[in-house]
Amino acid sequence: MPLNDHTVKAFDEDIGQLRGLIAQMGGLAEHAIAAAMEALRRHDLESAREIVAGDKRIDALQIEVEQLAVRIIALRAPLADDLREVVAALKIAGVVERIGDYAKNIAKRVPMIESHGEIEPLSVLPAMSALAVQMVHDALDAFAARDATAAVEVCDRDRQVDDFYNSLFRVLVTHMMENPKTIGQVAQLLFIAKNLERVGDHATNIAEMIYFAATGTHMAERDRGDIPTS
Amino acid sequence: MPLNDHTVKAFDEDIGQLRGLIAQMGGLAEHAIAAAMEALRRHDLESAREIVAGDKRIDALQIEVEQLAVRIIALRAPLADDLREVVAALKIAGVVERIGDYAKNIAKRVPMIESHGEIEPLSVLPAMSALAVQMVHDALDAFAARDATAAVEVCDRDRQVDDFYNSLFRVLVTHMMENPKTIGQVAQLLFIAKNLERVGDHATNIAEMIYFAATGTHMAERDRGDIPTS
Repeated sequence: MPLNDHTVKAFDEDIGQLRGLIAQMGGLAEHAIAAAMEALRRHDLESAREIVAGDKRIDALQIEVEQLAVRIIALRAPLADDLREVVAALKIAGVVERIGDYAKNIAKRVPMIESHGEIEPLSVLPAMSALAVQMVHDALDAFAARDATAAVEVCDRDRQVDDFYNSLFRVLVTHMMENPKTIGQVAQLLFIAKNLERVGDHATNIAEMIYFAATGTHMAERDRGDIPTS
Repeated sequence: MPLNDHTVKAFDEDIGQLRGLIAQMGGLAEHAIAAAMEALRRHDLESAREIVAGDKRIDALQIEVEQLAVRIIALRAPLADDLREVVAALKIAGVVERIGDYAKNIAKRVPMIESHGEIEPLSVLPAMSALAVQMVHDALDAFAARDATAAVEVCDRDRQVDDFYNSLFRVLVTHMMENPKTIGQVAQLLFIAKNLERVGDHATNIAEMIYFAATGTHMAERDRGDIPTS
């Protein structure tokens, strides 16, 4: 494979395009999670429907990333660092698409939670959501900057989201015990809390992929702590 | 790209190797789900631990598939049908890895469900699990046979798993209302039921990927129906 200036420049342009598509996907997914939490808070069914419909844009971008990544691998046969970066982009797009799915899933549950005024734990969810969305944002910033140190820092924050989830799990179970007639609705909140916890895990996955792409070594395996102990 | 007999034979061998790795992954993931349900039924903590530890083998196989697929794309620059098949293998491996994660997740919940004798809905879960695992099995058979018709048939069965889930959701919520002291444990069952419902969705995803790889067109979008309406 001749490695001349022309090849390098073309590859850099390809990678730039990949990064741009992923930044777009990330922006849409972050916004979708935040909008879903807002729709939940205001019981806004119209906005919830728009979030569900809007997920198709994220899916379409993922397909674009996939096609571009495969084309780059086939045409330019990148090696070592460059190949790791293209593969990371391919995988990160897959994870961001899943984050979009969580936003869609939360939005689909909005109509099922009617008596939101009576369920106090609902007021805790936006804070958990903000933490998880910030992790996604910072992970994608680390990708744009190819910054392995920033990626490690994102992973370290996953514990906070897990703690939030575990505490919320207990609060929701207690709420169910004390208000049996809201159990069906609170069960939906349990799933929403779990979705947000998974968004944090996915931000961690992205950060691990960035770390591997940038350094060629895997970040030490961490305990995800995603199962509540009570 | 010269397309001589040698190239074709080498590509066929590569694809055969990819298929073999995915069949191995699929066998492990199916077994892990079934074993997790059995560990749940018998409250077998030792077996649950083994399932959690065993997930690493599935993860390692996924990395092998990814490396092989990328090598095939870079070295052989396959076109059209062949390229679609390699990309499908790459994506299917990602989905099977997630199915393995669901098995691990179910196994992690086993220690948290102690009073299993008193929770009748627990007896319904194995039937739901069997349906979902069969879908995964048949989807991977369709992949091995490159059979688009069999893939469509797998998707059609997802509705049954969804119906199972929706009915189980209502049963579990009712059980919580009637037995407030088991709410914490029954919430774990709710997550397990949701995991099994997601396994069915993933089997559907695999089937859709097979359909696209085999035909070059996307299967008509279907309503997943994965949110209970009550």
